[in-house]
Amino acid sequence: IDSKLPKVGTTIFTVIGQLAQQHNAINLSQGFPNFSPDSKLLALVNKALVADHNQYAPMQGAMGLRETISEKTENLYGRYYDPGSEITITAGATQAIFTAIAAFIKPGDEVVVLKPAYDCYEPSIELFGGVVVPVQLEGPDFKVNWDVFKAAITQKTKIVIINTPHNPTGSIWSASDMLRLQSVLEGTSILLLSDEVYEHIIFDGVPHESVSKFPDLASRSLICSSFGKTFHVTGWKMGYCIAPKELMKEFQKVHQFNVFSVNHPAQIALQDYLKHSEHYLELGAFYQKKRDYFLAAIQNSRFGMHPSQGTYFQLLDYSTITDKKDTDFAERLIKEFGLASIPVSVFCTEDYDQRLLRFCFAKTEEVLDQAAEILNRI
Amino acid sequence: IDSKLPKVGTTIFTVIGQLAQQHNAINLSQGFPNFSPDSKLLALVNKALVADHNQYAPMQGAMGLRETISEKTENLYGRYYDPGSEITITAGATQAIFTAIAAFIKPGDEVVVLKPAYDCYEPSIELFGGVVVPVQLEGPDFKVNWDVFKAAITQKTKIVIINTPHNPTGSIWSASDMLRLQSVLEGTSILLLSDEVYEHIIFDGVPHESVSKFPDLASRSLICSSFGKTFHVTGWKMGYCIAPKELMKEFQKVHQFNVFSVNHPAQIALQDYLKHSEHYLELGAFYQKKRDYFLAAIQNSRFGMHPSQGTYFQLLDYSTITDKKDTDFAERLIKEFGLASIPVSVFCTEDYDQRLLRFCFAKTEEVLDQAAEILNRI
Ligand SMILES: CSCCC(=O)C(=O)O
Ligand SMILES: CSCCC(=O)C(=O)O
Repeated sequence: IDSKLPKVGTTIFTVIGQLAQQHNAINLSQGFPNFSPDSKLLALVNKALVADHNQYAPMQGAMGLRETISEKTENLYGRYYDPGSEITITAGATQAIFTAIAAFIKPGDEVVVLKPAYDCYEPSIELFGGVVVPVQLEGPDFKVNWDVFKAAITQKTKIVIINTPHNPTGSIWSASDMLRLQSVLEGTSILLLSDEVYEHIIFDGVPHESVSKFPDLASRSLICSSFGKTFHVTGWKMGYCIAPKELMKEFQKVHQFNVFSVNHPAQIALQDYLKHSEHYLELGAFYQKKRDYFLAAIQNSRFGMHPSQGTYFQLLDYSTITDKKDTDFAERLIKEFGLASIPVSVFCTEDYDQRLLRFCFAKTEEVLDQAAEILNRI
Repeated sequence: IDSKLPKVGTTIFTVIGQLAQQHNAINLSQGFPNFSPDSKLLALVNKALVADHNQYAPMQGAMGLRETISEKTENLYGRYYDPGSEITITAGATQAIFTAIAAFIKPGDEVVVLKPAYDCYEPSIELFGGVVVPVQLEGPDFKVNWDVFKAAITQKTKIVIINTPHNPTGSIWSASDMLRLQSVLEGTSILLLSDEVYEHIIFDGVPHESVSKFPDLASRSLICSSFGKTFHVTGWKMGYCIAPKELMKEFQKVHQFNVFSVNHPAQIALQDYLKHSEHYLELGAFYQKKRDYFLAAIQNSRFGMHPSQGTYFQLLDYSTITDKKDTDFAERLIKEFGLASIPVSVFCTEDYDQRLLRFCFAKTEEVLDQAAEILNRI
């Protein structure tokens, strides 16, 4: 078989997840909480099932859910998106990102991707014949070097992908980063794909700089977000995409033939839940506590760390411990120590040569204690 | 904006569905039942939610669910598919079909599509630069003309798509059709994409001829099916794809970056439900009764009909009533008579010139009566 994606193997989350299971390891690899969602939300799914929302949802998503997203976006970020034509509910943010790429990338189109980058962007781009133009984020805070960024933009650039708060590094974009991006893109017809899956998981009182706050960026942007990350239900596979009408029209042309529509009872439940809960406003503080708990527990370990500014991931630098490659060290941590993490190199270009592992701290204190106990021993 | 799919509008199911709603029409358009699924199945979702299957399912799907599909396929069709490497749970059959096309179609590849064809195939093929080679099904039973079919196969043919039971026509493939296809494909490396979404909805005691029954076809086939159609839960968006390991490997390379995984509580519920229910074995008789009820109720109408042999769709020929195009007549039926159906031309090539509408009879007798009352008046 002549593979369309010869370089692509099984996603790291599946590989490490299986290895973690085999070795009964504490699993701080794939990004999901080990605690339950609000039981009220679960009860609302049951209610939707019994009220028989069991047939196709509208292709764009349940209207009430789109309306709550519209309201939330306007309240938090000051931009109005028309629920009728500018919002689509997706089978997770991954499907939103894939569909956005599918809708716009033609063979030869270039896509600027900031590295490290979440692992779904590049194969999706390549599947449509697009060319990934990687731009390395720099320094311990993984900042954009704007000269390097500008040099990466060509006549062929079709999309720039950004991600804030950033998986896997936990870095965030400031308003001035956004304005800088805005000025670089000014006068071009380059689209922006903004992965804001962790929009509500941001720490130290810093506001999330959504692309939707910046009119000259928002007008060219598809913004993808997640219910799974926000409501502790990653397994429901619910997300959404918002974009100006003309972009959303193209997005929906693909969406309707990719999945057509999304799990209906879960949409009705989220719609009802969001009417009475602003739970997401407390999510930053909730996860900040976990970050601080985890970092305090390992402060005397040999791992180096810059506190994560957002997401539920923390990078740990093990360069003082060993010079092993991160894939090897991650494997050893699972097999010998029973602790699973994600090697950062899987998000990086081939010349990457740092010694970093990514740990998910969306876990109970008990599990964080167990992980810390191991990390302190290494 | 330079559209990748300039000819594509909003899918007919959304357009007609919205029109039906505006006019408060009886909706026999989009294919979904107007009755509830088994309450036991709903209770199992609730159980899975409460048992906290709320985080990511495995990328390939819940193992127990894959195992039940493997067993069912072996029992019914005599072929064993390895649940570990040959089955993937998808966000509906549409996502399975889209992903299969995505995994194999490169620019310039030809795909033979039998017309009329379900509306997602062609835009998906075109999105990847594939070329649709339409082959018209012939006669009142919509049979393959094998000379025309053979002439459509070229060096560039990458995939042939078949669909039995067939949406929208309700025709089915016999074993000899399958053997004929097998002999045409012999010696080529052409893949077969078999849409068997309605595998359990087949009438008059005729067995479903799954591609998996024919080893020389199965070895080159991706077979897509649906839980939504089988268990009256189209809104859950649950389906699956089965294929030999080498093909499934390529399928999963795309699947993992398209949706990653699928709604977990629904998977657990279906897995538990399938262990104790062979409900699907009675589905043919269940829908045959509805087909017969519907046809009996309109037997004195002016519509012509060949009884559907499978699916929950019935074509009605209105050529003795008017010479109007089917899109116009379908619109008139909604606006003037309050009855929604699907014009068959949306599934056809441009030179299509028949007078057929598709009606979904997956409805309670009460609704079928209301529809019949209107059809008898026209
Ligand atoms: C879609 S599986 C991965 C979940 C996630 O976002 C991560 O671990 O980075
Ligand atoms: C995915 S929406 C359409 C449902 C269906 O299969 C049909 O009506 O043909």
